Formats: sequence, structure tokens, C-alpha cells
Amino acid sequence: MSGIPMERPVLAEDEAAALSGLAARVRALAEATVLTSVGTAEAAAVAAEVEALTARLAAARRDAPPFVPSGERRMDRQFANPVSGALNPLAPPIDLTVDSDGIVRGEFTLSTVYEGPPSYVHGGVSAMVLDQVLGMAAAASGTPGMTATLETRYRRPTPLGVPLSVEAKASRVEGRKVYASGTICGPDGRVTVEATAMFIMPQRFVPHS
Amino acid sequence: MSGIPMERPVLAEDEAAALSGLAARVRALAEATVLTSVGTAEAAAVAAEVEALTARLAAARRDAPPFVPSGERRMDRQFANPVSGALNPLAPPIDLTVDSDGIVRGEFTLSTVYEGPPSYVHGGVSAMVLDQVLGMAAAASGTPGMTATLETRYRRPTPLGVPLSVEAKASRVEGRKVYASGTICGPDGRVTVEATAMFIMPQRFVPHS
Repeated sequence: MSGIPMERPVLAEDEAAALSGLAARVRALAEATVLTSVGTAEAAAVAAEVEALTARLAAARRDAPPFVPSGERRMDRQFANPVSGALNPLAPPIDLTVDSDGIVRGEFTLSTVYEGPPSYVHGGVSAMVLDQVLGMAAAASGTPGMTATLETRYRRPTPLGVPLSVEAKASRVEGRKVYASGTICGPDGRVTVEATAMFIMPQRFVPHS
Repeated sequence: MSGIPMERPVLAEDEAAALSGLAARVRALAEATVLTSVGTAEAAAVAAEVEALTARLAAARRDAPPFVPSGERRMDRQFANPVSGALNPLAPPIDLTVDSDGIVRGEFTLSTVYEGPPSYVHGGVSAMVLDQVLGMAAAASGTPGMTATLETRYRRPTPLGVPLSVEAKASRVEGRKVYASGTICGPDGRVTVEATAMFIMPQRFVPHS
């Protein structure tokens, strides 16, 4: 339908490191864009330079995002994931780990580029992060799947610019369905957002044709 | 808590246009980053150039993202919004409008930078978009609020690289609570994701201290 190939190139370690470094710089550029007050002429001049750099990167281009080999308990195969991928400049820098107890944990700080209500994290961004973390917890249970339902409850505002923690765990597996739940907590350890989700192994999600 | 000031600069039209143009170029650079195969030396060289451009933008920097004056039925005041803001390179280019019937509508196409399962939109990205659109529908009812609950149901995979449509409407208002629902549809008009949400006017969300 979309013409995006399903086969993915797998990167060597040095290329993955170079591209992660590039993505981190582009993420910083995106944040600087939101806050800059350099004026219209300088903004236009920088925009022209950015366009030239995009052309340099596009000179050799893949048809689909690459993968990296799975590290033990890291699940970083989806290197370009828009929520937690080191190659994706849109993803906040969340370092997620899967512990031996099956709990996925991460620490992260969100800048004003993720702002919804003034000084707080956008509710949709919190939902996006929780979908990813609960999905990883489902996968850690041995039954990776696509999101079927996601319910998020916002207990209090999630602040920008301070360390947040997220964690999730699968609660039960029923055939191809996995249920998981998790939370985002502020620096005081209190829950700001909680979520439950159900994931289903892919077969069922093949589009009807 | 975060030290982010609540007062926001309001941009003049020419500055808003220049910064939107810059954000669009940075968005294209982010997408090129995810797909490039230029090799490690060129990736590192481009990264150094990106870092220099970030320094140029940071030479004059605001403490908080700016607003633009509200256009009629456009609700584009939150110019840097991470889901729909023209100034935010992380936001997909979604043009959302609020019609006279109170329905918020938008068309958008998501590239591989938003990929979750191979060739499909990340479930968390769909939830993020729906939170924003339902929140705008709640605000259009006259009772803007922060998300209290968001429930998303994934009916079938949402494809990348093809035109999607999103729409939402407030269903009822109870004091400071507003209920809204909405959908994302694929190019064939079939619903891929549906959501319901409840929003509450801000007072209640002031953090306990």
C-alpha cells in the first residue's frame, strides 16, 4: 500500500554510532528552532543551510529505516523508532532497559519542545511514550504485538525540564493477547500518568483486502 | 518547578513565517537522517555542521516557546505544539481546522520517521495525534482543558506514506469536564484508530504543594 519495503538493512556498530550522533545533533537543532529569537534574516539563512545538509544526507538514501542487532535485554532493534530510537531525532532521549523481572524501565527529561499546557508535557506525548514502554513490556513477556487498546489516565500534570521515570510490566497473556500496565512518575516519585494496554500478535492485524 | 516562564512572546507575522520555514527544513533534515546511507565520515561531517547551525540559532534564545495570534477558527496559538505546531520540527505537518459545526478536521501523511511496526504508523503516534485533535474539539466547545483520560482503540494498522484524515467532536460538557471522540481514517475512508477522551479545565490540575 505504502511501497515501504519490509526487509531492513542491519547496521554495523560504527555506522550506528555515527548515525546516532547525527540524530542527537538534529534533535538539538529542533529544540533550538523552537526557542530561537535570531530574527527573520538569520532564520532564513540557517534554513537554507539546513536544506543543503538535507541534500547531502539524501545523496545516498535507504527505502526504509535500518535496524541494529538486538543487544541483550535492550530491544534496540528498532533503531529509528519515533519514541525511543537513537537514530530518530523526533524521539526524546529515553534509555529503556528490560530487567530480568520483565519490567521495562527508563529515565528521561523532556524539554519545551514537548510542551502542551504551559510548562507541562503534552498529554499526547505521555500517551506516546507509554504505548512504547507498555509494548516493550508485552514483547518482554514473549508475545510481541501491535497495540489493540491503550487507556491513559492523567493524575496530575507532568512537568518539563525535570527527571521523569517510566516503567511498565505485562500482567497476563491470553493466547495472542498480552495485557500490560505502567506509569510515568515525576521527580518526587508520584505518578503523573498511568496506562493499561492490550497488544495482539500481528496476524490478526493484517489489513483486509 | 521547571523554571519555564508562563508568559509567552507573541510573534509578528513575518517572524512566524520565517520560523515556520526553518522548522519545515529541520523536519526534512530529521527525515533524511533516518533514511540516509551516506556512511560514517559524511554523517559525522554533517553532524558537525548541524551543531554549528544550532549554535547560530542559540545565539539569541527565548526561555519558552512563542505563541502566534489566534487565527479565526484555526487555534494556532500554540505555534510550537509538538503535535500540530508549524514551529515544531517534531510535529507532523497536520493542518487542523475547526469547522462551524465544532468538528476539528485534518489531513496528513506520515513518513517512515513515524514508523512503529514495519510500514505502519507507531501506535503511540496515533494516540498523540488523537489527544491533540480531541483536545481541540473540547476547546472548540468553549471549555478548553487538560487531558484527564484518553482511550484509543486500534481497529486496523494505519499505513505510512498515504493520505490520512483525522476528525473529532465534543460530545458533552459537564461543568469543567468535556467529553470528546474522534477517529483516524485511511485513504479508503475506513477507521484505523478511534479514541474517546475526557478533558478537565485546568484549576483542578494545579499540582498539590
